[in-house]
Amino acid sequence: MNMYDLIQRKKTGGTLTKDEIYWMVNGFTKGEIPDYQMSAMMMAIYFKGMSREETLHLTMSMAQSGEMLDLSAIPGIKADKHSTGGVGDKTSLALLPLVSVCGLNIAKMSGRGLGHTGGTIDKLESFPGFRTDIPIETFEKNASEIGIALMGQTAELAPADKKLYALRDVTATVDQMSLIASSIMSKKLAAGADLIVLDVKTGSGAFMKSEEDSRALAEEMVKIGKDAGRKCSAVISDMDQPLGNAVGNILEVKEAIATLKGEGPEDFTKLCLTLGAQMLLKGGVTVSIDEAEMRVYAAMHDGSALKRLAELVEGQGGDPSYVFEPEKFEEAPLKVEVKAPASGYIQRILCDEVGLCSLMLGGGRRTKEDVIDLRVGLILEKKVGDEVKAGDVIAVLHAADEKSAEEAKKRYLAAVTIGEEKPEERKLIHGIIE
Amino acid sequence: MNMYDLIQRKKTGGTLTKDEIYWMVNGFTKGEIPDYQMSAMMMAIYFKGMSREETLHLTMSMAQSGEMLDLSAIPGIKADKHSTGGVGDKTSLALLPLVSVCGLNIAKMSGRGLGHTGGTIDKLESFPGFRTDIPIETFEKNASEIGIALMGQTAELAPADKKLYALRDVTATVDQMSLIASSIMSKKLAAGADLIVLDVKTGSGAFMKSEEDSRALAEEMVKIGKDAGRKCSAVISDMDQPLGNAVGNILEVKEAIATLKGEGPEDFTKLCLTLGAQMLLKGGVTVSIDEAEMRVYAAMHDGSALKRLAELVEGQGGDPSYVFEPEKFEEAPLKVEVKAPASGYIQRILCDEVGLCSLMLGGGRRTKEDVIDLRVGLILEKKVGDEVKAGDVIAVLHAADEKSAEEAKKRYLAAVTIGEEKPEERKLIHGIIE
Repeated sequence: MNMYDLIQRKKTGGTLTKDEIYWMVNGFTKGEIPDYQMSAMMMAIYFKGMSREETLHLTMSMAQSGEMLDLSAIPGIKADKHSTGGVGDKTSLALLPLVSVCGLNIAKMSGRGLGHTGGTIDKLESFPGFRTDIPIETFEKNASEIGIALMGQTAELAPADKKLYALRDVTATVDQMSLIASSIMSKKLAAGADLIVLDVKTGSGAFMKSEEDSRALAEEMVKIGKDAGRKCSAVISDMDQPLGNAVGNILEVKEAIATLKGEGPEDFTKLCLTLGAQMLLKGGVTVSIDEAEMRVYAAMHDGSALKRLAELVEGQGGDPSYVFEPEKFEEAPLKVEVKAPASGYIQRILCDEVGLCSLMLGGGRRTKEDVIDLRVGLILEKKVGDEVKAGDVIAVLHAADEKSAEEAKKRYLAAVTIGEEKPEERKLIHGIIE
Repeated sequence: MNMYDLIQRKKTGGTLTKDEIYWMVNGFTKGEIPDYQMSAMMMAIYFKGMSREETLHLTMSMAQSGEMLDLSAIPGIKADKHSTGGVGDKTSLALLPLVSVCGLNIAKMSGRGLGHTGGTIDKLESFPGFRTDIPIETFEKNASEIGIALMGQTAELAPADKKLYALRDVTATVDQMSLIASSIMSKKLAAGADLIVLDVKTGSGAFMKSEEDSRALAEEMVKIGKDAGRKCSAVISDMDQPLGNAVGNILEVKEAIATLKGEGPEDFTKLCLTLGAQMLLKGGVTVSIDEAEMRVYAAMHDGSALKRLAELVEGQGGDPSYVFEPEKFEEAPLKVEVKAPASGYIQRILCDEVGLCSLMLGGGRRTKEDVIDLRVGLILEKKVGDEVKAGDVIAVLHAADEKSAEEAKKRYLAAVTIGEEKPEERKLIHGIIE
């Protein structure tokens, strides 16, 4: 076997075997296959694609390049959920307690990552005392007994993916469906869940801007998940404007808590119901999607999911009283209103720009070393389609100081378009792939 | 400017500007642009191609990456010739004296390279005393006064090409017309000639197997040559069997000498006439191709080109008497006949295999350090289309020892196909691109 032949074969439209793909990924991870050959291969794959089998082998070989988590000590169906990311996406905070109450076990290992707000782990650390660096025994015990545990990533999952992604990132070979899908799925498969439900975002604020691309990615990932022997489905959900009203760590935690009391924003509530129902159905908890959605709805209104969130917090050293008294969370010192500069309808709210506002206010990380200010962020008082009068408050910035508030305010105003016409309504759920 | 954007643009079918290409080639040559980005770019070019302008800029940027030879001290039209390579290709040895006699000045710098026989420089060193490491003053003086000088490569021409080719060679990105053409032409342009005539081989023994590909490469190279302001044309000639009868260094020198006396093999003689006529016509020595061919033919029969070869040899310290008494050349100790195993017509002689016979006999270099045995090689007594009886001598091996002779004999027999049908005759000249 040699890399030249494999590149040549792929370049001319041929197929790589399982052995060849494992050999390539292992050799690359160990540094035996040089970057310049791998980048040529990635570009050849960009143009020639990969078959369903090739994609599975690439995914599995990357998953197996590091530790494969064994969750077998935890009883029942272990469920995981993955979002391709967006602004205001606090879904895990509400969704995981909901499905845990309904009978799925959540044992999730998460990284922190970079972005406009922190990840799920960062947001949970808003609860005073909450720890994610818990011993594996506590993790397994809580997942088994409480039904939910979240742990900071201890082992490096799928190191091959990390190395390959870094190379693709500098050689313009990221945007290929099979490669994107295998990158995401290799980490999910290594994380050990039996059931993986994917939230694939679509729209201007999503990694995939078009519905067509989002659907293609969702299909590719679901195929991999199933081929790898896991239960898997995907929801394609809108990310053309921020999700819900809150952007920022504590602000999002509060919104998730409200949602678990049945008082969440309409779009976010619907997304939780849809994803939750998918998870219950695929996990075999219910036999119909309607029944599944009713179960999730009930958990959202009978206080059981709220209680489960409190148990999760308490089980990992946090103060659960904040779940029931969210007003105890520390607030940002400054609240600055952003007012509509004109009358009309909100036609557009640029997701990425709102994300940057959050980052400017101190709510996210630019580099791994950055410290997040958990208090800051934005509350969107008006969303796309809402009618406003000039001077109406369209958003409230929660800021640490005046300077960042002023900058974020300017940016936010530039991110919002107000016009005379009522914009066409976008669907929240664009489709389900199973 | 950054490499990521250039890869992304090329990948999506866009065009790179002159500045971008120069920036990329310079950065790559200096090691500032990493191999893994350049190999991704090469693969993107493999799929998306390059425009005529892009190809010219790539070629010129590589040509200018090292020394650009200045031949302006030599009067008249300085002519160069390049062959894409094949077996038995001793063309320069006969062609250059021919066109020199007819009025073109030859000031050619050559490398040695690897292969089944030595290069032109190695072959000329068959003349005792002949030096190619002559001072630049002697080179310029001889080219001016005698009309012909050949020098071993002192400066590294087009170092960017060398580095890029090495990368393409290990990343399966060699076989792209614009890249092949720019690689060849960058060195030719750096070598400084006003007139470049290309001998593009076609057939099983050529780099380009199909006539279509050979034509495409020829067209690409001629475009570059013209766009760079040089006089340029190409002859597409057959390399489906070895050229002429001799393969090996001294054997080929002798065949070239015979050809300069009008006693050369038919195919080789015709190729010299065709290429020579192209050179005279493009160099403005004659106004018609017929007149040009007559001039070359005359030089081949009046002894003037033979004399010019002797002057070349003498001008660089060699013994010119060998030109007139080629029997003085040292012969291989062993001559082994290869006999036809059956009666019929010679239907095929595999070029590459005959090349390997020569290499096995010691006539070529596998690595740069190998020492060539100038005496050894093969004389093909029968060529494709010839009728043979079982037992007829089809070739004579000139060997240093019995062991290599036996091995080469087996290999030669395997390379020749004898059958009942007379094979269809292949043209020697497949076309001229100007």
